[in-house]
Amino acid sequence: MSLSQYFATFLPTIEIEMRRAVAPSNDPTLMAFYGMLHYHLGWVDADFKPAQFDSGKRIRPVLTLLCCEASGGDWRIALPAAAAVELLHNFSLIHDDIEDGDPVRRGRPTLWKVWGSAQAINAGDTLYTLAHMALNGLADYHIPPERILAARQRFDRACLVLTQGQHLDLGFESRSGVTEAEYLRMVYGKTAALIEAACGLGALVNGSDLVSHYEDFGRELGLAFQIQDDLLGIWGNPHVTGKPAGNDLRNHKKSLPVAYGLDRSEDLRRLYAQSEVDVAAVIVELDRAGARGYAERLATQHHQQALVALEATLQANAATEALRELTHQLLNRTA
Amino acid sequence: MSLSQYFATFLPTIEIEMRRAVAPSNDPTLMAFYGMLHYHLGWVDADFKPAQFDSGKRIRPVLTLLCCEASGGDWRIALPAAAAVELLHNFSLIHDDIEDGDPVRRGRPTLWKVWGSAQAINAGDTLYTLAHMALNGLADYHIPPERILAARQRFDRACLVLTQGQHLDLGFESRSGVTEAEYLRMVYGKTAALIEAACGLGALVNGSDLVSHYEDFGRELGLAFQIQDDLLGIWGNPHVTGKPAGNDLRNHKKSLPVAYGLDRSEDLRRLYAQSEVDVAAVIVELDRAGARGYAERLATQHHQQALVALEATLQANAATEALRELTHQLLNRTA
Repeated sequence: MSLSQYFATFLPTIEIEMRRAVAPSNDPTLMAFYGMLHYHLGWVDADFKPAQFDSGKRIRPVLTLLCCEASGGDWRIALPAAAAVELLHNFSLIHDDIEDGDPVRRGRPTLWKVWGSAQAINAGDTLYTLAHMALNGLADYHIPPERILAARQRFDRACLVLTQGQHLDLGFESRSGVTEAEYLRMVYGKTAALIEAACGLGALVNGSDLVSHYEDFGRELGLAFQIQDDLLGIWGNPHVTGKPAGNDLRNHKKSLPVAYGLDRSEDLRRLYAQSEVDVAAVIVELDRAGARGYAERLATQHHQQALVALEATLQANAATEALRELTHQLLNRTA
Repeated sequence: MSLSQYFATFLPTIEIEMRRAVAPSNDPTLMAFYGMLHYHLGWVDADFKPAQFDSGKRIRPVLTLLCCEASGGDWRIALPAAAAVELLHNFSLIHDDIEDGDPVRRGRPTLWKVWGSAQAINAGDTLYTLAHMALNGLADYHIPPERILAARQRFDRACLVLTQGQHLDLGFESRSGVTEAEYLRMVYGKTAALIEAACGLGALVNGSDLVSHYEDFGRELGLAFQIQDDLLGIWGNPHVTGKPAGNDLRNHKKSLPVAYGLDRSEDLRRLYAQSEVDVAAVIVELDRAGARGYAERLATQHHQQALVALEATLQANAATEALRELTHQLLNRTA
C-alpha cells in the first residue's frame, strides 16, 4: 500500500475505534456529558445534532498503526492504542484552549466558549479517562496482560511529559526571553513526547524489540514538525495556512525563531517587549539575526535524524516506506 | 489493633507512599511543576519551603488499607492503591476549586488562587497522571499483571463516574430545582463512587472474592457520609464545623434536604430563588417540610446498609471491627 492508501484504509477504522471509546450513553441525563466531547471531536454540532466537522489530521493514530505494521505486526491490533493516543491529544487541546483563552479551534467555538470553563475542564478530565480506558480494548486482540500494562505505563509517561511541556509553555508567557534549550525542552513535552509515544506504542503492542527505534523516529519527527509549524506561523502564506499573517508574533508567541533571535538581538528584545508588536519590523530583525535559516537547518536536522532512526529498524516493507513518505510530507508542507 | 491504632500505623506510611508518587524532581526547571502539587498536598508553603499544613483526614486511603486487611490480606500490599485513591481525590479537589471559584481550602489559598487557573488546570492534570502511575507500585509487592490491570480498570471506572458527578453538580447550579433522584445520582458520582472504589481496591489487590461486598460497603458509607455533610452544612454548629452558619444555603447549594424541600414547598422555591437567601426563613421552611428528619432517616438507612454489606463478608477480625467503628464515627460526627 502507498501512504495515501494507508490513510484511506486507516482513517475510517480509527474513527470507529474512537467512537467506540467515547460511546454515547443511553442515559438522557448524560446527553451533554458525552455530547460536549462529541462536539469537540467534530461529530456533532453544539445542539448535539450529528454533523461532520474538521477534526484534525489524525496524524498521531496513523503513525501508531503504521509503526505497528512496519515493525512486522498487523496494524489492527494497534487500533485501541491509536484511539487512546488521539483521544489524549484531544484532551490536551480542550484544556490548552481554556488555559490559553483561545475562543476558536478548527473554525468552531472552543468547548469552553460554548459551555463555560467549569464544564470544559471537567469534559477534558473525562476525555483523559476515556483515553486511558481505550487501551483496555487491547485485550480484545489477545494481547497479554503484561504487555497491556507496559502500554499503559508508556502512555502514563507521555501524559506526564505532556503536562510538563504545558507547564513550561505557560511559564514562558510571563517572561521576556526564552533560551533555545528551554524552548526545545518545552516543545519536546508539548508536541514530540506524544508523537514519540504514538510511534513506540505501535511497536510495543506488537511485542517488537524495535520500540526504542520507533520512539526515536517519533520524537525527531515531532521536533521537526513543531519547528516547521513555528516557521509557517511567521513566514507561511496566510492564504495557505489559514491563519492571519503575523498572528504568532502579535500574540508574543515564544517560537524557536523568536527564541533564537531574542538570544542574539537587543533590537528584537525591545520590539518584542512592546504590547503592540510591530510585526513587519520583527520579521526584518529575525531575518537579520539569521533566525529563519537557523530554524530551517534545525528542522532539517531533526528530519534527517527521524529517517536515520527509521533506517535503524532494518525493516524494508510498505509501511516503512509510507512512514518515510509521511516524514517528507510533514517537513515540506506549507500548511 | 483498634481503629485509632490502625490510623496511627497507617497515616505516616500512606504519607511516605504519596510522597514517593509525587517525588520532587532534581531538575530546577520543574521545581514549580512539582512544588504546586506539594503545596496542595500540605507539604510546602507557597514559596515551596517545607511545612506541614492540614491535608485532610485521609479517610479514603485508610479505608483501602483496612479493607485489604479485613479481606484477609496484608495491608502493606494495598499501599500503592491507597496512595492512588488519595491522589485522585486531591486531583478532583484542585479542579473543583477552579470550577467552583473557591479561593480557600483547608485554611489556605487554593492552588488556582496562588498560581492562576491555567497552571492550576495543568497541575490537576499532572496529579491525575501521578495517581494512575502510583498503581504501578503494586508490582513491587509481586501482584500479578492481570490483577494490576484489573485494579487500573477499576480505578478508571471511578474516574469516569467522578467526572459524571461533577458534570451533574455543575449543571445544578443554573437550575432552580433538583429532584432527590438527581441529587443522589450526583452524590454517588462526586463522593460515593471513589469511596466505593477505595474499599473495593483494598480487597481486589489481595485477590479476594469479596470485592463486591467491600464496594457495597464503601458506596453506602459514602452516601451516608455525604448526606451527613449536607445536614451539618445547614444545622451543624459553626463553632464545631468551622464553616460559617448558613453558608451552604447562602450559596444556593443543592443539598439533599434542600432538594427534598424544593420538591414539596412552594414557599421554599420562592425563598431559594432569591439572589440573597434569607437563611433563617429557609431553615424554618425546611423544618416545616420535614427535610431534616428525612435526610437524617436516609443517612441512617445508608449507614445500616453499609454495616449489612460488611456483615456479608463474614470476616471476623480486628480490621473489620475497625471498619465498623469508623462507620459509626463518620455518621455521628459533628464536624
